[in-house]
Amino acid sequence: MIENKERTLEQLESVFKAYEQREIERVFLVACGGSRALMVPSKYLIDREAKKITAEVYNSNEFIHLNPGTLNEKSLVILCSHKGKTPETTDAAQFAKDKGALTISLMYIEDAPLKRASNYTINYSWAPAGSKEQYSEIMNYGILYRLTLKLLSIKENNQKYDKLINSLEGLEKAFDKANVQYRAKAKEYAEKVKDENIIYTIASGSNYGIAYTFADCILMEMQWIHSHPIHAGEFFHGPFEIVDKDVPFILLKGLDETRPLEERAEVFLKKYTDKLLTIDAACLDLSDLDDDIKGYLAPMVINYVLRLHAVALAEVRNHPLPTRRYMFKVDY
Amino acid sequence: MIENKERTLEQLESVFKAYEQREIERVFLVACGGSRALMVPSKYLIDREAKKITAEVYNSNEFIHLNPGTLNEKSLVILCSHKGKTPETTDAAQFAKDKGALTISLMYIEDAPLKRASNYTINYSWAPAGSKEQYSEIMNYGILYRLTLKLLSIKENNQKYDKLINSLEGLEKAFDKANVQYRAKAKEYAEKVKDENIIYTIASGSNYGIAYTFADCILMEMQWIHSHPIHAGEFFHGPFEIVDKDVPFILLKGLDETRPLEERAEVFLKKYTDKLLTIDAACLDLSDLDDDIKGYLAPMVINYVLRLHAVALAEVRNHPLPTRRYMFKVDY
Repeated sequence: MIENKERTLEQLESVFKAYEQREIERVFLVACGGSRALMVPSKYLIDREAKKITAEVYNSNEFIHLNPGTLNEKSLVILCSHKGKTPETTDAAQFAKDKGALTISLMYIEDAPLKRASNYTINYSWAPAGSKEQYSEIMNYGILYRLTLKLLSIKENNQKYDKLINSLEGLEKAFDKANVQYRAKAKEYAEKVKDENIIYTIASGSNYGIAYTFADCILMEMQWIHSHPIHAGEFFHGPFEIVDKDVPFILLKGLDETRPLEERAEVFLKKYTDKLLTIDAACLDLSDLDDDIKGYLAPMVINYVLRLHAVALAEVRNHPLPTRRYMFKVDY
Repeated sequence: MIENKERTLEQLESVFKAYEQREIERVFLVACGGSRALMVPSKYLIDREAKKITAEVYNSNEFIHLNPGTLNEKSLVILCSHKGKTPETTDAAQFAKDKGALTISLMYIEDAPLKRASNYTINYSWAPAGSKEQYSEIMNYGILYRLTLKLLSIKENNQKYDKLINSLEGLEKAFDKANVQYRAKAKEYAEKVKDENIIYTIASGSNYGIAYTFADCILMEMQWIHSHPIHAGEFFHGPFEIVDKDVPFILLKGLDETRPLEERAEVFLKKYTDKLLTIDAACLDLSDLDDDIKGYLAPMVINYVLRLHAVALAEVRNHPLPTRRYMFKVDY
């Protein structure tokens, strides 16, 4: 356990100094699975806030094989692997470092192969799904926002960084309130859907990443339930034809600028399925977050609520979240 | 029907002149559903080939609401809507034009609202799934490659444009050969899976877009079969836990640099499901395509093969491809 807030903040300061010392034109956010998905909100933030700097999210192995033509010494590459042992991500860090990029790795573990392949490492805090969140201002999403927004502050004079820091401190209260509000509801929902064969998730903008994580990493990986994270803007251009009274959907409604897309999906889903669960950030108490930054941070609180649902599902289905049939068990 | 090759080539020439006359730093590929997915290979091409120019693919509605900070008069925005009537895409064209971007729309139809919201329009050729492809060198994928690769030729002196043009001419032969090779096989496959509840698709790199189209637009939209296009690089970081003997997968193996990701997924799938269909571009006769460009064009031929499967599925399931329960029938 390396939940040492002071040290993490020092690690961040070293990176910020490195930002000052070099030109950065492009950010590559590189990881696998849930670690990749948690970078989606930071890409959304850069896409909206940056005037010159551009951002990409890549699966680590795709990143290496695709070999982006714009990856060079003016690139910032941020990687993440919870235990720092994902081989594709370690290889991606080395690959980027060899091209002269500034490489920064996020890990929960103190030392691991990923650290040795990167210029800088930052250790984030972490708590298992459903347990009390500690040091929420240095959890993985928060570190990513700090890294990306500070970059825009230094390079483009973006003014939102201080608001972010204040809001990250308010997150713990938001989690506590969400816990009180949703713990029992999550159990009720789990009882209702425990025998479902498939559950779709749907969201847009900064929330799409957590819809992906719940579909691909909770439902498919940890519960062996079929799923598919549908983008709310794409929903009406194909996927919505699958909707029927008995097809379950989990709709996420965030507070960012794409909320109208999620609202439009909700109107339709309310009409055509009897199995809709909506998790709406507007119904959560986020009064400890700054209004200017709320849209970016809402996914972190929705994700907390989703984790309560994951724990409840695992319990009622008697299928613990760490159960695997292939991962770390067979060759692949 | 506007399959007038000469006119389409003239339309392209006008756009190339516009390229000469302005600085372009960033390309936004903007559309909905199948039209959005067909832009994925062009993003892959730019990601690999460009040294400075960057590319994004956006759903039209997300594009407008997210409002990218880097969208300006140095942006090229390429949009697509088959009949030119997708309201979100028309709005996106107008939105981008108002910001000073160079906006180019692809449509099959000659005149439509999208045309009036764009600086330039290009009409592409099209044939219904399963019928003989006409003028394959000006079909939608080909037009997109012409637009993106010519941009890199003009702005960055990329040398592959002529090879692209020669290869596009060879496509029609590749389609004809694929037709002979796969028509009967597609029917056999359709017989086998006609009662399946869910069929996953999986691919990476330039092929991911067609895996998306088959999952979201053929299976979910046109056949009401559950699906999910899984990225082959992400497969081992969550989704692969869903695999079981009786879970059907369609794996696409292309010829681009990410093929090792698809090959790795194949090794696993062969072992753990009895219901794997692999469509491998290496087994197709692509001898009329230039080796340097084959990886980029393989998705077009794999997509042709997938369309044979779509037609066969629709026939054996007695569920015609144009059948809808919501689209253009109810309010949404």
